Amino acid sequence: MKHSSLTQLAFLLFSTSLMTPALAANNMPVQKSPNGIELPAQYQDWRLISQSHRVDNNTLRTILGNDIAVEAARNNNTHPWPKGSILAKLVWKQTPEEHWPSAIAPDKFVHVEFMIKDKEKYKATGGWGYARWLGLEQKPYGLNTDFAQECVACHTPVKDNDYVFTRPAKLP
Amino acid sequence: MKHSSLTQLAFLLFSTSLMTPALAANNMPVQKSPNGIELPAQYQDWRLISQSHRVDNNTLRTILGNDIAVEAARNNNTHPWPKGSILAKLVWKQTPEEHWPSAIAPDKFVHVEFMIKDKEKYKATGGWGYARWLGLEQKPYGLNTDFAQECVACHTPVKDNDYVFTRPAKLP
Repeated sequence: MKHSSLTQLAFLLFSTSLMTPALAANNMPVQKSPNGIELPAQYQDWRLISQSHRVDNNTLRTILGNDIAVEAARNNNTHPWPKGSILAKLVWKQTPEEHWPSAIAPDKFVHVEFMIKDKEKYKATGGWGYARWLGLEQKPYGLNTDFAQECVACHTPVKDNDYVFTRPAKLP
Repeated sequence: MKHSSLTQLAFLLFSTSLMTPALAANNMPVQKSPNGIELPAQYQDWRLISQSHRVDNNTLRTILGNDIAVEAARNNNTHPWPKGSILAKLVWKQTPEEHWPSAIAPDKFVHVEFMIKDKEKYKATGGWGYARWLGLEQKPYGLNTDFAQECVACHTPVKDNDYVFTRPAKLP
C-alpha cells in the first residue's frame, strides 16, 4: 500500500470513529432525540459550570459545558451565550452519604439533558435546541418533536437570562 | 538567533510557564500550604467525580479529579485509589436559584481542598496529602503542618474507604 493510501485509510478510520454514535452502558448505540439532536460525545468529560440540589424532587444536578460554554461562563459572556455553547445537566436521585448523613450525595442516575445554542437552527424553540436521554441506558426522551415545547415552557420564566436557569458557579 | 537557540528559548518559556505558581483572583501568586503542598494548576478544569450538599453547614460541593483519579473512578479502581490520584473538593455557600427557589445553587466560593494519594510521601497522614485554600484569593489554610491532623481525624471514620467520603457518581 502506498503512503498516500495509508494516510487516506488512517483518515477514514479517524473520521469513522468520530461518526460512531455514543454507546450506552449496555454497549448499544444511543438513539437520537426525536428532534434529531444526537447525544454529544464524551459529555461526561466536559468542564464544570455549576451544580444544584432540587429539594422539590430530591435530585442533585451537575451542570457541565462544552469548551465554548465554559469559556463563555468563565469570561462572564453569557448574555447571550455564544453560538455553539452546549450545557449538559446530569441528574441523580439523592441519598445521604453513609458516613456523613447530613451530606446529600448522588445515587441512581436519572437522566442527562442538554441545551444547544444556535439562534437560527433552533429558532422555533427560543434559540436553544433541547434534548434529554434517560437512565444509564440513555433512552431518548419524548415521543415526537413536540416534547421540546415542554422545555421551552419551563424555561420561559428565565427568558431574560437567555432561557438558562443556571448561573455559573464562582471560581478562583 | 539560530534555530536551535530559538527552540531552547521556546522550551525555557514553556518550562517557566509550567513552574509559575497559580494566581489568585487578585493576580497574586498563591502561597503553598504549610505542609509544602502547592495548589494544583488548573484544577478548575478537572473532570467530574461527584457532588454533594451539606445541609449541616449550608454548602454545596463539587468533587473533581485529576486524570489518574478520574480514570480510577470510572473504572471502579478506588480501593485503594492509585498513586498520584488527586481529588479536589470545591465548596460554595448555598443560595436558592432566583427563578426556582427549591433549587439550591452555589453562591459565595468558600474554599477548595485537596487529597493527594502517595502512600510513602504522605505516610504520616494515612497515605494522603491534605491541603486547602480559602476564598477567591486562595489563602492557604493552617498555621503550621499540624493542620493536617484535623483532616486525618475527620477522615478516619472512612478509613475502610481509603479515607475518602466521596463515592464517584454513577455515569452512563
